[in-house]
Amino acid sequence: MDFTIRAATLEDCKDISRMILELAEHEKVSDQIKITQRDLEQDGFSKNPFFHGIIAEVPEHFKSRDGHTKVGYSLYFYTYSSWKGRAVYMEDLYVMPEFRGKGIGKALMAKVSQLGLAAGCTQLNFTVLDWNKSSLDFYRKQGCWDVTADLGYHCMRCEGDALEHLAQGDL
Amino acid sequence: MDFTIRAATLEDCKDISRMILELAEHEKVSDQIKITQRDLEQDGFSKNPFFHGIIAEVPEHFKSRDGHTKVGYSLYFYTYSSWKGRAVYMEDLYVMPEFRGKGIGKALMAKVSQLGLAAGCTQLNFTVLDWNKSSLDFYRKQGCWDVTADLGYHCMRCEGDALEHLAQGDL
Repeated sequence: MDFTIRAATLEDCKDISRMILELAEHEKVSDQIKITQRDLEQDGFSKNPFFHGIIAEVPEHFKSRDGHTKVGYSLYFYTYSSWKGRAVYMEDLYVMPEFRGKGIGKALMAKVSQLGLAAGCTQLNFTVLDWNKSSLDFYRKQGCWDVTADLGYHCMRCEGDALEHLAQGDL
Repeated sequence: MDFTIRAATLEDCKDISRMILELAEHEKVSDQIKITQRDLEQDGFSKNPFFHGIIAEVPEHFKSRDGHTKVGYSLYFYTYSSWKGRAVYMEDLYVMPEFRGKGIGKALMAKVSQLGLAAGCTQLNFTVLDWNKSSLDFYRKQGCWDVTADLGYHCMRCEGDALEHLAQGDL
């Protein structure tokens, strides 16, 4: 199947927003999604964007059953390791179910990797849910390793009232 | 003890580099450090920096046994959650051993949280090594929660030859 991988533009935010919801439904967390099309437009496509996006697109005659030609996406941004320096973080990688198995996910991941290497990054990082065995297998086949399992890294988070208190330094 | 928390400048990179090594020695990974003072200068203090830094500084009369007045630091950068939007990531939080227990770590973390909130972030994220129980306890006391333990998030990484192959899309 023909498909194109290209940088996302402001006009893609509606489809990215739709696919973020589809991915969240797959991960059983759609009630957690607070991000709207408008947030994506503001946060990704103004000065000093918080993320960048990539779109996988198919020609009109291959469109989805629902009429979509934008059938996959990845969001990524640049981060930094105080051990190894520049790194790229892949926040999402998603391909609509009916377009899987055609190399689109691998092509999206290849593009993020290319952009990271071009920016001087030595690492590609991302997170996977431990129950998502098919994703874990896919990534391991690509030569990725599990930093949490192998080195004991735990992701920690502070949000809401706890973050407000932390900022006030009064806990 | 008096101390000041302020934004890091180019001139702090020598001390940040020293403290990155001290932290790595504590975490038993100093052989993993590839980052030099020059890397920090280039990556943090040129256009479109990959990270930002904060320094904890004490007055001259409180200097360390080795003569240092810059006694703690944090590196942070902005990231993005496709569920919750803008987030701030704290890459490192370090206070020299002889200056611990005086609220410097908490003040550094408060500053990163303040900057995050001011930028519209709703989350502060970071990673902790699971054997580092004193750090885990410190962070839990601040209201942080363990995303890996509670939701099953695993940090994944691709680097070196595997990343080159991934970029070529030929695995």
